[in-house]
Amino acid sequence: MLRKMNAVPIAQVRLQDSFWSPRQQLVKDVVIPYQWEALNDRVPGAEPSGTIANFKAAAGELDAAHHGFVFQDSDLAKWLETVGFVLQQGRDEALEQLADEAIDLMGRAQQSDGYLDTYYQLQKPGKQWTNVRDDHEMYNAGHFMEAAVAYYEATGKPKVLDILCRFADHIGEVFGPGEGQKPGYCGHPEIELALVKLYRLTGKESYLATSKFFVEERGREPQYFNIELEERKAAGYTERVETRKQSYFQAHAPIREQHSAEGHAVRAVYLFAGATDIADEYEDESLMAAVRTLWNNTVKRRMYVTGGIGSSDAYEAFSFDYDLPNERAYAETCAAIGLFNWGHRLLQIEGRAEYADTMERTLYNGLLSGISLDGRSYFYVNPLEVWPVISGKRDDIPGATLRRQPWFGCACCPPNIARLLASLGGYAYSFADDELYVNLYIGSEVVQAVGGSRVALTQSTQYPWEGAVGISVRTDKATEFTLALRSPGWCRDFAVKVNGEPLDAASLTKNGYVKIRRTWNDGDVVEVDMAMPVELIRAHPELREAAGKVAVQRGPVVYCLEEADNGSNLRDVQLSSDASFQGRFEPKLLGGVYALNTGDGWRTEPSAVTEDLYAAKRYGKTPAALRFIPYYAWANRSEGEMTVWVRERER
Amino acid sequence: MLRKMNAVPIAQVRLQDSFWSPRQQLVKDVVIPYQWEALNDRVPGAEPSGTIANFKAAAGELDAAHHGFVFQDSDLAKWLETVGFVLQQGRDEALEQLADEAIDLMGRAQQSDGYLDTYYQLQKPGKQWTNVRDDHEMYNAGHFMEAAVAYYEATGKPKVLDILCRFADHIGEVFGPGEGQKPGYCGHPEIELALVKLYRLTGKESYLATSKFFVEERGREPQYFNIELEERKAAGYTERVETRKQSYFQAHAPIREQHSAEGHAVRAVYLFAGATDIADEYEDESLMAAVRTLWNNTVKRRMYVTGGIGSSDAYEAFSFDYDLPNERAYAETCAAIGLFNWGHRLLQIEGRAEYADTMERTLYNGLLSGISLDGRSYFYVNPLEVWPVISGKRDDIPGATLRRQPWFGCACCPPNIARLLASLGGYAYSFADDELYVNLYIGSEVVQAVGGSRVALTQSTQYPWEGAVGISVRTDKATEFTLALRSPGWCRDFAVKVNGEPLDAASLTKNGYVKIRRTWNDGDVVEVDMAMPVELIRAHPELREAAGKVAVQRGPVVYCLEEADNGSNLRDVQLSSDASFQGRFEPKLLGGVYALNTGDGWRTEPSAVTEDLYAAKRYGKTPAALRFIPYYAWANRSEGEMTVWVRERER
Repeated sequence: MLRKMNAVPIAQVRLQDSFWSPRQQLVKDVVIPYQWEALNDRVPGAEPSGTIANFKAAAGELDAAHHGFVFQDSDLAKWLETVGFVLQQGRDEALEQLADEAIDLMGRAQQSDGYLDTYYQLQKPGKQWTNVRDDHEMYNAGHFMEAAVAYYEATGKPKVLDILCRFADHIGEVFGPGEGQKPGYCGHPEIELALVKLYRLTGKESYLATSKFFVEERGREPQYFNIELEERKAAGYTERVETRKQSYFQAHAPIREQHSAEGHAVRAVYLFAGATDIADEYEDESLMAAVRTLWNNTVKRRMYVTGGIGSSDAYEAFSFDYDLPNERAYAETCAAIGLFNWGHRLLQIEGRAEYADTMERTLYNGLLSGISLDGRSYFYVNPLEVWPVISGKRDDIPGATLRRQPWFGCACCPPNIARLLASLGGYAYSFADDELYVNLYIGSEVVQAVGGSRVALTQSTQYPWEGAVGISVRTDKATEFTLALRSPGWCRDFAVKVNGEPLDAASLTKNGYVKIRRTWNDGDVVEVDMAMPVELIRAHPELREAAGKVAVQRGPVVYCLEEADNGSNLRDVQLSSDASFQGRFEPKLLGGVYALNTGDGWRTEPSAVTEDLYAAKRYGKTPAALRFIPYYAWANRSEGEMTVWVRERER
Repeated sequence: MLRKMNAVPIAQVRLQDSFWSPRQQLVKDVVIPYQWEALNDRVPGAEPSGTIANFKAAAGELDAAHHGFVFQDSDLAKWLETVGFVLQQGRDEALEQLADEAIDLMGRAQQSDGYLDTYYQLQKPGKQWTNVRDDHEMYNAGHFMEAAVAYYEATGKPKVLDILCRFADHIGEVFGPGEGQKPGYCGHPEIELALVKLYRLTGKESYLATSKFFVEERGREPQYFNIELEERKAAGYTERVETRKQSYFQAHAPIREQHSAEGHAVRAVYLFAGATDIADEYEDESLMAAVRTLWNNTVKRRMYVTGGIGSSDAYEAFSFDYDLPNERAYAETCAAIGLFNWGHRLLQIEGRAEYADTMERTLYNGLLSGISLDGRSYFYVNPLEVWPVISGKRDDIPGATLRRQPWFGCACCPPNIARLLASLGGYAYSFADDELYVNLYIGSEVVQAVGGSRVALTQSTQYPWEGAVGISVRTDKATEFTLALRSPGWCRDFAVKVNGEPLDAASLTKNGYVKIRRTWNDGDVVEVDMAMPVELIRAHPELREAAGKVAVQRGPVVYCLEEADNGSNLRDVQLSSDASFQGRFEPKLLGGVYALNTGDGWRTEPSAVTEDLYAAKRYGKTPAALRFIPYYAWANRSEGEMTVWVRERER
């Protein structure tokens, strides 16, 4: 292993956080039951999912054709994984009963050879593995493997793990470099990282080897997707083949020869996460170097200030360096989740807080924007600017919607957010032999063996609204270990005290963590105070869509202007370079947010405006009060304009 | 008639202008011969046109299927009209021989009932007038009528006029409100204005009545396009029907109930021009009011600073108020030509210079940009900003090309520019009983009967590069009349002298014309001096794509920055509010242009730039020398970035 540290498992972390706990509760109380109803086609007015019905049909218990997408099965997988995460934090008999019911159904639907994919079983029996480019069999399998691991870790019940191990064994027989094996890989990466999870739980090395094969074979000549296409033609299949570039599937070159993030963004970051795992497990420095290059390209050239990625609506894809349009952003919620997960892997390997900085940027902004405050509706697309009048008026601007939707026919994002929120505690802490890392500031209790003792920390904070964090230590005996506190990239003044004694944080900082090594005693108290002024963020000058503009950020939270607070024509608004803000936590606004007000905005003086479309004159400016709200909370009131980037009035 | 004045015919105007005469010569020497070869499929490497071959086939002289678009015939019409305009300024035996040859062929192809449309004659015999929404029969007919008028006025040869009168008679029988007539109108307006031209030449009132019917019937319930569709279905036709909104065809409402310019921009302005003619001829004030509303909406809400219209690539259409994207502009060359022509009609009716201001804005900018400096290549699409790196990298940004193309399969724009340039003299002057109007400042001689005498003016100028214009008057006898000199909307300081004596231009100005009423003697000299400083233009605050930006204009010419002069990343460039410019005419640059240089540009200080994509810092600025060239001349050097709107550095 290359990794310097390991994530503290979810089961050892209990959130007690005014920001996140209600959202986790929402997942348990609202999202999971709602999604279960949706999977069972019992949500009135929603597009039928068909997911459970497909499994029943595959099990021979229902006479029905397959319904939905080729990746419909994965909806159940993500639901089940979410349930697993919830149960890791506290068992729940009723919920387990639903899950066990679904698992039993999966078992009855599984073929005797281990294969399980309702689309092929119902729609194309006997043709399995003939179109791995498009048909997502291994993508579905990967999500089920993740679910199986999560559910097993929560409950210790072996059934779903057995089902997926049998499926993984089958896949390992079919695919690989050996005689009689197919040298293929899935068009939608996911199984790569899932097989590593399965390996880490079961210790079965063949899973790791299969994953490594998938990562390394991808993009090699001869191109497998072409081989299987020829084989389908030879077999007389006549289905229409969508022409897509190999780069859409990240199959344009072997991964070590890829130097930029290309193609479908979700596919890309899932693959890169899997490749990171393989580099870690095999201690493969050259693969690690390739992954680092891809990460740097992604976060330094192709990521929105909200942490969203995949700027192009066409194919939900990365486009090219510094091409980050605000209004036409795609920035799919699932891609943000993938970036978050990829960053988490790199963080463990390198122990550098910059990865957590990106995770945090994504989490509080372009990821969280994917779900409404009430947990009942979702965005696929997360634009940085919206001009509602354009909707439906220009046929050439697709993509962005003004309102989150209750459930999608293609329901990738909603269950993906649910599993992320349910597992959030698992990202907050890491550990090494004698080190305990605080990666994310979230009110929580964590228990971890470190330095030979069982150590418990209680973290109390109003983060992200306040930069004060209190950490109390409990331990059975005085124990020497390093408590490593992440000093966020956005923070310029990180103060820390232990038992009331200030420490020199700067001199203790390494790789972005303030590392406090000492013998810790039960009852020790750490006080962190991160200065959290409002800052104006400017983009790299090549990022043309942000030229002359600033984004407002406070702590990890990126703000936006909404029409509901600021009226229309937000492009007319300017913000002074030296604007001062008055902020406070407003418990009744948008579920409780820290809103920012300033009198240092400007607008065109209305009396200066005539009918002239163009004129050789300067329009007068008049001061304007502006109110910024957190970007993630946009579109929870009336439909209207929104913008993250605001024109700067230079002072 | 409502009109206050009439255009002085082309034949009475001879251009002698350093800017325009070479372009007219190019049309005669290069474009007409080239287009003739193209129409005859003799241009190596170019897409075959098939136009002449279609007529030969329709005449039974060639065994070939129809080639090209349903509006392929109109390419010949526009070519012939261009020839007519050229011949009005000087007969040319060789050219007439080509034209007569084409006319003879048209005559042989025409059906005995007067019908003439090679697409239907070859492809759908017997089905004529069954799909007037899509199939352009009357659009083609209209262009031929315009051509016939131009050619007849040039040569007095009646043949082509006879052909088109027979066709017009046929159309007048088929379409109309009477029993047994079809209550239809063409999906692509054009014949409306053409029939008025035919009426004005022949005096035959039925042409006017048919045109009026087309203008007024359009958009009424029941929708004719639906009626004919049902009729086609009933007749068993099975062709695919494109679903397009009625507004695409301006058939969403009767014209008097249309309050904004909607749908396909070329269609729209052709219709509005025809409606203007009908309002004029019938002295229909309510129709005139509707037309004025549409004009104001177009030029005050939906027109680029270049005079381009139709901002949406989807359907080459108007979108909505203030929606004028720079990079995704469509702004088709043909639409600019249509706007120019429509403005010319309104100018005659109202005698207000503001219409000529818009004509001039379009002419020198978004229209002229459609043709390369060498006259050999053309733009359909005239964006205001280009970022070449985007080409082919984002599948969701179609439209703009970086280079003019030699000839289009759909060749509407090239012959349309040719006919506009060939007829330019016809737009320069207008007359009323005792008034002679100078609408456009172009070096030229004009002869016109006014105040009872034959008056000749010689206009000498280096316009648009210089604001000095000399006008000398020749007349057989002392004659009292008003010489009305347009005071351009861009001009803040219009000085005029008669025989060396300064006049108070301001007090003489009415409706944008400086009206000098006196008894004019042979040899009188008028000197105009229009101050022509460089001005920074700002857009209406609702025009969000220009927020915080300025356009540089001098006289009627709008400027741009090109990468060839200014390097890349033009969005990073700022121009000071108080920038001073050094300009001079550079005879060797881009065929001779007045270029503008300034040291008051700014760019990000390169040393301030790090790898950071986002940072809470201000980037330093460094002065940058900038060079602006006329927008119309862009893309005549290497491919690269271009922008009209430049970020303003407020001072």
